[in-house]
Amino acid sequence: MHNNSTYDELQTHIRELKTPQIETWENKYSDKDYIVEITNLEFTAVCPKTGLPDYATICIKYIPDQDCVELKSLKEYFVFFRDVGIFHEHVVNKVLEDFVAACQPREVEIVGDFNIRGGMKTVVTANYRKE
Amino acid sequence: MHNNSTYDELQTHIRELKTPQIETWENKYSDKDYIVEITNLEFTAVCPKTGLPDYATICIKYIPDQDCVELKSLKEYFVFFRDVGIFHEHVVNKVLEDFVAACQPREVEIVGDFNIRGGMKTVVTANYRKE
Amino acid sequence: MHNNSTYDELQTHIRELKTPQIETWENKYSDKDYIVEITNLEFTAVCPKTGLPDYATICIKYIPDQDCVELKSLKEYFVFFRDVGIFHEHVVNKVLEDFVAACQPREVEIVGDFNIRGGMKTVVTANYRKE
Amino acid sequence: MHNNSTYDELQTHIRELKTPQIETWENKYSDKDYIVEITNLEFTAVCPKTGLPDYATICIKYIPDQDCVELKSLKEYFVFFRDVGIFHEHVVNKVLEDFVAACQPREVEIVGDFNIRGGMKTVVTANYRKE
Amino acid sequence: MHNNSTYDELQTHIRELKTPQIETWENKYSDKDYIVEITNLEFTAVCPKTGLPDYATICIKYIPDQDCVELKSLKEYFVFFRDVGIFHEHVVNKVLEDFVAACQPREVEIVGDFNIRGGMKTVVTANYRKE
Amino acid sequence: MHNNSTYDELQTHIRELKTPQIETWENKYSDKDYIVEITNLEFTAVCPKTGLPDYATICIKYIPDQDCVELKSLKEYFVFFRDVGIFHEHVVNKVLEDFVAACQPREVEIVGDFNIRGGMKTVVTANYRKE
Amino acid sequence: MHNNSTYDELQTHIRELKTPQIETWENKYSDKDYIVEITNLEFTAVCPKTGLPDYATICIKYIPDQDCVELKSLKEYFVFFRDVGIFHEHVVNKVLEDFVAACQPREVEIVGDFNIRGGMKTVVTANYRKE
Amino acid sequence: MHNNSTYDELQTHIRELKTPQIETWENKYSDKDYIVEITNLEFTAVCPKTGLPDYATICIKYIPDQDCVELKSLKEYFVFFRDVGIFHEHVVNKVLEDFVAACQPREVEIVGDFNIRGGMKTVVTANYRKE
Amino acid sequence: MHNNSTYDELQTHIRELKTPQIETWENKYSDKDYIVEITNLEFTAVCPKTGLPDYATICIKYIPDQDCVELKSLKEYFVFFRDVGIFHEHVVNKVLEDFVAACQPREVEIVGDFNIRGGMKTVVTANYRKE
Amino acid sequence: MHNNSTYDELQTHIRELKTPQIETWENKYSDKDYIVEITNLEFTAVCPKTGLPDYATICIKYIPDQDCVELKSLKEYFVFFRDVGIFHEHVVNKVLEDFVAACQPREVEIVGDFNIRGGMKTVVTANYRKE
Repeated sequence: MHNNSTYDELQTHIRELKTPQIETWENKYSDKDYIVEITNLEFTAVCPKTGLPDYATICIKYIPDQDCVELKSLKEYFVFFRDVGIFHEHVVNKVLEDFVAACQPREVEIVGDFNIRGGMKTVVTANYRKE
Repeated sequence: MHNNSTYDELQTHIRELKTPQIETWENKYSDKDYIVEITNLEFTAVCPKTGLPDYATICIKYIPDQDCVELKSLKEYFVFFRDVGIFHEHVVNKVLEDFVAACQPREVEIVGDFNIRGGMKTVVTANYRKE
Repeated sequence: MHNNSTYDELQTHIRELKTPQIETWENKYSDKDYIVEITNLEFTAVCPKTGLPDYATICIKYIPDQDCVELKSLKEYFVFFRDVGIFHEHVVNKVLEDFVAACQPREVEIVGDFNIRGGMKTVVTANYRKE
Repeated sequence: MHNNSTYDELQTHIRELKTPQIETWENKYSDKDYIVEITNLEFTAVCPKTGLPDYATICIKYIPDQDCVELKSLKEYFVFFRDVGIFHEHVVNKVLEDFVAACQPREVEIVGDFNIRGGMKTVVTANYRKE
Repeated sequence: MHNNSTYDELQTHIRELKTPQIETWENKYSDKDYIVEITNLEFTAVCPKTGLPDYATICIKYIPDQDCVELKSLKEYFVFFRDVGIFHEHVVNKVLEDFVAACQPREVEIVGDFNIRGGMKTVVTANYRKE
Repeated sequence: MHNNSTYDELQTHIRELKTPQIETWENKYSDKDYIVEITNLEFTAVCPKTGLPDYATICIKYIPDQDCVELKSLKEYFVFFRDVGIFHEHVVNKVLEDFVAACQPREVEIVGDFNIRGGMKTVVTANYRKE
Repeated sequence: MHNNSTYDELQTHIRELKTPQIETWENKYSDKDYIVEITNLEFTAVCPKTGLPDYATICIKYIPDQDCVELKSLKEYFVFFRDVGIFHEHVVNKVLEDFVAACQPREVEIVGDFNIRGGMKTVVTANYRKE
Repeated sequence: MHNNSTYDELQTHIRELKTPQIETWENKYSDKDYIVEITNLEFTAVCPKTGLPDYATICIKYIPDQDCVELKSLKEYFVFFRDVGIFHEHVVNKVLEDFVAACQPREVEIVGDFNIRGGMKTVVTANYRKE
Repeated sequence: MHNNSTYDELQTHIRELKTPQIETWENKYSDKDYIVEITNLEFTAVCPKTGLPDYATICIKYIPDQDCVELKSLKEYFVFFRDVGIFHEHVVNKVLEDFVAACQPREVEIVGDFNIRGGMKTVVTANYRKE
Repeated sequence: MHNNSTYDELQTHIRELKTPQIETWENKYSDKDYIVEITNLEFTAVCPKTGLPDYATICIKYIPDQDCVELKSLKEYFVFFRDVGIFHEHVVNKVLEDFVAACQPREVEIVGDFNIRGGMKTVVTANYRKE
């Protein structure tokens, strides 16, 4: 069902993985700091070790600057990972870099809460703050 | 059921949208800082993209200055949004500006917690502090 | 069932409302700061607008100084409000002033968490710290 | 905001109220009895007494015969009630009659669970079984 | 705060205690059996032994015949007990008899779930079925 | 802290153990079957094996006949077990026999739900029905 | 991202859809009726209308006859649906037929509990009993 | 860490596996039917496929006849499985046969609720009734 | 069942009450600050006012220095209070002083969470930090 | 089933206990601080006092530096404790030292939450921060 060497290759070059563009709309209240928290309860990717599906809840909490993220396009961005073999730690860091590139937020924190595997559960948290 | 271009027009000029007045009564304990938290569990507006209803819980947490907000009038203020096509982010920022205008609180935080759409959930938080 | 003008009168002079005395006993550990949290799960008063009963949970969290509050007398103090028409915001501030007068605590915080009315919920929080 | 006599008129003739058609698709497993349970977590109508919005969760549990109900059309059917002044008891009985007319199920049970009003909560349950 | 002998007298003649009338409206779907469940989350009466307030949740589940109970009048009926000294067991049986007299339901079950007293909790359930 | 042989002796003659009388009052609604459920959330006895305290929640659900059990006397009855070394299974059967003797109910079920010991939890259920 | 006509074609011929084989092992206790309940918390398929992913929990409760289902092979069977466009009602009926074919159970019930879409939730239940 | 062929051998001859004796004491209330429910929240065995530990909650609900099971000896019986490679289905059936042999209950039901593995959860239920 | 004057005497001299010794063992990781939290879910004492039992959960959170508290001896220490008439506030302060004397921790916080009495709940928190 | 003197010996020399190596992989995002939280819901060891099994949930929250911990190898590391007699306090400190040695994290906190024994519950928390 999968090819381990391909997946391993992917982990090594994970930061170069090309993902879909996340669209934005103009923030009408950019004169103020406010927080938007978007939680995708239905994230799935593939475990690079076993080729079996992984599941997670991914929460993005950000302070928009000039742009707000468009929800439908963000959802489609997440669907891209459905067939991607990727480590839990990489998912969260990758989404962080793509999200920052898309909307240049003042601050953002991303939490990926992955389902239990073999009696063990993993939660990964990464964040970014504009200088 | 709805007209997209009208709704888009509304989002562009959202800060000018005219809303009902929120009434107040005189704060008898204005010599002290204390916190009032009012939660509307039954907020509904219309999604400007699809014309279908959106639902949210909206919590207002404020320190009153000279005036406390009158509950019944606040409820009627919220009912106004029942037929308004408006983004989640705009709802919270709009309510914040109207609330500040109505009772001039020392501090206020507004949290809008919107129902799941397509497996995704949005929470928006904005606040204000009197200088 | 009630008389609106009487209730309105009461709100205006709420700080002068005479309430029963809360009794105390001598704090044997007054050489230390420790916290006592007493929660009345069964507070009820009357809504001054409608004359119908209101219900709340009221939590008192304090650091005693020379005196601890006697529980039974505190309970009877709360029962006094059963027939009093009074706003949510006034309940919490009134209880705070009476409590401070009774036992002169080093610090106290009072939270009144009122039941849902018309899909809306109110929580009021006030506190005091001895200079 | 509303006109009581119009609403009263409506309650008297509630069984004649014209509602949108619910669409269906052909049941491919009609040789078997199986259960479909659809829950609308976001029902809202108007209280005929006060003109203020009412909220409910409405659950439809049915055994399809030749036709299954189409979800999107069912959702639009529910949206119709957004501006209708109607009693809790009438909502459930009306939905039952419309649902039976639309898909002729072998059996159906409808439960409407309405939000708290004045410290009181109402749940209405009605059902139908094909002879 | 209370007079024990008066309360004891009341328990002996509890079935004769005169209570307010519960109003009804005409059931438009009386050709069908359906269930209405009304829960009062805010019942309070007085303990005949101690004179202190008692609290309960009271749930009425009935199949209406020709008449449905009017909610506001039912609420006012419950408020009557606010100053009545009465045993838990009597509350439920008394409400049952009054409810049956008011709307002549096909069936009704009443459950009174009383708050903890001295580490003990009481729930009383009574029902009626029309012959 | 305890003497095993004494406790063993007690288990053998457990049905003869003399316990305090539970008081009753006259059931004013004995013409009807209704259910009273009394839950003692704070039962404690002693483990006959280790001499250490055991804790349980004990629920009595009964249909009274001519007599209802008086709550305060029932509580004192339970306090009696505070110093008694007794097996979980015996607690429930003993309470059942004493309860039946005290108020001669039409039916009664007693459930004792004991706290976890060594990762294991015990619940004992016994009942009686008048012939 | 998807082709509606292909998906529609699939719904019409859903009962002929070829799925992977579910493996079994010999039931060593086939002289007794006992129940095995296997719940897949991570089912996903594709919505035939939108081409977007659907998510569900699928519970299989069966009484094995000569064969028990092998868990790992069942999991791989479920993974097959990851790229299949299929209605909620069809998922449950299809799994039922495949499961019965694989292990010929004495009885089986299958419940598919699908995630909220547009404020609405669907649960489908089908069952089979050997003659 | 383990040897698959040994474990496979064990599954084939699982009904002959020799386990420790469960001790009992004399039931003093054997003239009545009552229920004892003992839940072991800390069961662990080894997965025969992977050699890794499995975890479960095992609940035994029985009506004793002449003998009650002694808790400490039952706990030690469960500890025996700590190093045994055994299928979920076999655990429950094996415990059932051992339990019946030990105390000859009038009735017994055993439920084994095993922890999630690969997003899937298993619950096995078996029972016995004396003829 | 008790003698009020004796209990009152005890409250006055509560700091002199002699309690059992809590044993300790040598902390092998005393070169590091780490936290141990021990919660007794089954504390009971006697109310000095009524002579009836009180129940609480008592949580001790400490940073050990040279000694860790031995669990079994701590449990026996708590059992001592089973027959002691003592106020909620005194229980927590007394345990704090005894605990500090026994193991000389770097820091310790003790929380006593007492069961509801007359609709009111008490939580007492005290702490100590080594100079 | 166990030998107390051997276990006591082990506690004295617990810091020298040799445990399996935890494997790691190269952190591709080591230019950033991010948090990984891994929770083992199925930890078990042996109580050195009684020789009976202990159970715990162990949560590791760390900021990786050059290396991330490999999940499968971590799981096998935990399985090693299955037959080790060890105090709760030692488990957490031992895992902390082994974890730090394996992956040299920037920061790490370890929480061991052990199951109730004799009505008492223990949680141990230790942490490390790279200088």
